[in-house]
Amino acid sequence: MSEESPQVRPIEAAERVGIGVIGCGTVGGALIAALLSRSTQIADRTGTQLDVRRVAVRDLHKARDVDVPRELLTDDAEELVADENVEVVVEVMGTIEPARSLIEAALKARKPVVTANKELMALAGASLAKIAKENDVDLLYEASVGGGIPLVRPLRESLAGERISRVVGILNGTTNYILTRMTEEGVEYKTALDEAQELGYAEADPTADVEGLDAAAKAAIIANLAFGASVVAQDVHPEGITSITAEDIDLAGRLGYTVKLVAIISRHDNGSAGVRVHPVMLPADHPLASVRLSFNAVFVEGEDVGELMFYGRGAGGAPTASAVLGDLIDAAHNLRHGGSGRLARPGNATLWPLEEQSSAFYLTLDVEDAAGVLAAVAQAFGEYEVSIRSMEQTGVRGEAHLVFVTHE
Amino acid sequence: MSEESPQVRPIEAAERVGIGVIGCGTVGGALIAALLSRSTQIADRTGTQLDVRRVAVRDLHKARDVDVPRELLTDDAEELVADENVEVVVEVMGTIEPARSLIEAALKARKPVVTANKELMALAGASLAKIAKENDVDLLYEASVGGGIPLVRPLRESLAGERISRVVGILNGTTNYILTRMTEEGVEYKTALDEAQELGYAEADPTADVEGLDAAAKAAIIANLAFGASVVAQDVHPEGITSITAEDIDLAGRLGYTVKLVAIISRHDNGSAGVRVHPVMLPADHPLASVRLSFNAVFVEGEDVGELMFYGRGAGGAPTASAVLGDLIDAAHNLRHGGSGRLARPGNATLWPLEEQSSAFYLTLDVEDAAGVLAAVAQAFGEYEVSIRSMEQTGVRGEAHLVFVTHE
Repeated sequence: MSEESPQVRPIEAAERVGIGVIGCGTVGGALIAALLSRSTQIADRTGTQLDVRRVAVRDLHKARDVDVPRELLTDDAEELVADENVEVVVEVMGTIEPARSLIEAALKARKPVVTANKELMALAGASLAKIAKENDVDLLYEASVGGGIPLVRPLRESLAGERISRVVGILNGTTNYILTRMTEEGVEYKTALDEAQELGYAEADPTADVEGLDAAAKAAIIANLAFGASVVAQDVHPEGITSITAEDIDLAGRLGYTVKLVAIISRHDNGSAGVRVHPVMLPADHPLASVRLSFNAVFVEGEDVGELMFYGRGAGGAPTASAVLGDLIDAAHNLRHGGSGRLARPGNATLWPLEEQSSAFYLTLDVEDAAGVLAAVAQAFGEYEVSIRSMEQTGVRGEAHLVFVTHE
Repeated sequence: MSEESPQVRPIEAAERVGIGVIGCGTVGGALIAALLSRSTQIADRTGTQLDVRRVAVRDLHKARDVDVPRELLTDDAEELVADENVEVVVEVMGTIEPARSLIEAALKARKPVVTANKELMALAGASLAKIAKENDVDLLYEASVGGGIPLVRPLRESLAGERISRVVGILNGTTNYILTRMTEEGVEYKTALDEAQELGYAEADPTADVEGLDAAAKAAIIANLAFGASVVAQDVHPEGITSITAEDIDLAGRLGYTVKLVAIISRHDNGSAGVRVHPVMLPADHPLASVRLSFNAVFVEGEDVGELMFYGRGAGGAPTASAVLGDLIDAAHNLRHGGSGRLARPGNATLWPLEEQSSAFYLTLDVEDAAGVLAAVAQAFGEYEVSIRSMEQTGVRGEAHLVFVTHE
């Protein structure tokens, strides 16, 4: 072999990185299954061999879908974090404690952390990011918003130089499923909810989904990413879909709109960030209007980039595990090659109070079908400086149903 | 100040990184405008101050939209690459040479390169990636596919652990604009093309767009990213939209389909990658079917993640510059903190010959409206083992127009 063959080089061995996984439920199980079955393929593609070295579970003896080798299991998550063979910690157990303490311990031990924990990131994301930065180590959380949809990395890296003006997201699959069925089948809310529960899209207690709490937590995480706003879930006043009727949806359709539950995260001129969750009427040709069933989508408006949309499965074990895996490969690469802590500086945008934000509204009034009624309504709007964009009247036998769409 | 206040730390100065930009046309001008006007904001957000230190142009005296300080301009791009104050090179001049030689020189001088050059990456992406790897330096090209849409980074990083089965993309805005107008207004191809040319969406010579060559180059880049396939633009046999009639689109609509020009990049069971560009009939409720006008979108199907879609502006100065800027921030970060060369190993999937790929087809036949004609046609399909999914007959006065949609 002559010196003229520079492309002939020794085959590089993949770098091995030891992984500890806390939690082996829907997401953890799917992740471990992927890691056990595809670890060679991932090593070929990325140069990093991800070795699962420890899996922390609550009950060592519970039957699981995924066949975790018995010697990897532990019921002591603190021991997993401290184990010197564990170099990267994955937290997929959910809820606030002990997840928060375990993540803090890992970061302080300079171990990168990958988490899918929406609740925790919406509550304590800024504080955990600060600990990660102080220890010069990665804290990655792609899976905490939008399930399998790449969203955190595009917002944090691809759009790092972009001046984002607004993000509008369908962030909850349960409510989007219910609204899609109401729209396409004309059924009432309760019927659609029952169906969603039968299919496993809605929980027995659907409150967190249908009242907008789940979307509010995700909106807080997006506000931090897109605007550097220190917003926590509790700052976001959510409005859900429980009071939407089949008639509302039908009337919206006749006016050319589709009803969706969205989170709206917007930049105010004064630099503060507005964060809201409520149902909206979207023009039928808006890209978000055609997001059906349990899919999620996030629509981003930027000064230079214009309109972007990211669409996909916002929940479920395998899609969410896919997002965790992408983060895990990134964290392992950074551990070996340096380069952790992209966009480490948190911003300082404040929250823009809801009462100062403006919107166009849709409202319906049941009135007597008599001369002068519309004039009286119009006068009332005028007194409060509400400008009307469109009006439709329906009704029978002396009663009129007035539907207004206002300007902002 | 006591020791109990660990959060009070000295304000860190942003790290300055020197940038050289080769090319100051539509994309280069928009990029330089963004860098000059928002450099402090970007430094606040990312910790990196991007200093434009040199801009190479063909004609020093040409009037430009962006006000580049005279002392930054040079007409010697080689000098720019060699300049020790230039630490990262941005190539936005386009075409193959001298862009290729300049990028090679920069990489060999261990300077990271950010490029928007679709033609070059589709022709020589694998070779350039190899030089980048040998010199342990970044070669980033988000802007070469899908304009402002974050696509390269999600495919390379977020989905690095995913087993992608298929990518279907609307990758050309000009043809999507033409097809949208034909669909929504019922006009013929020529009318829609004229309109696209008047609006500046189509060039005076529209061949590269309407014959599918532009989409083919982008498809080759995606095949490399998604499957590690060493595919170049010339390997992709493109079929364009010039023979599509208003009647084809109308009939497709009546059968519940929307006509789109797409690139299809798919993984074959034997590990090879199939890459095709041709018009397809998409079910009207497919997410790509509602991508209108000059927008682009890329639909990804993965084993774990399910269906994903990325949507946005696939061309234009400001959106493309936004993608370049995201890459530039990444390259500058890696230069200071290490961590370049994510997913450095190219794959070795081969190209799957077009004649071995299968599709469902749509075809129309004009026949005599007489007994026995359909039977004869059906027999011919049967002889060649073509299975029919649906058939529609239209026609007047003794002539029949038969529209078939086949199975694969």
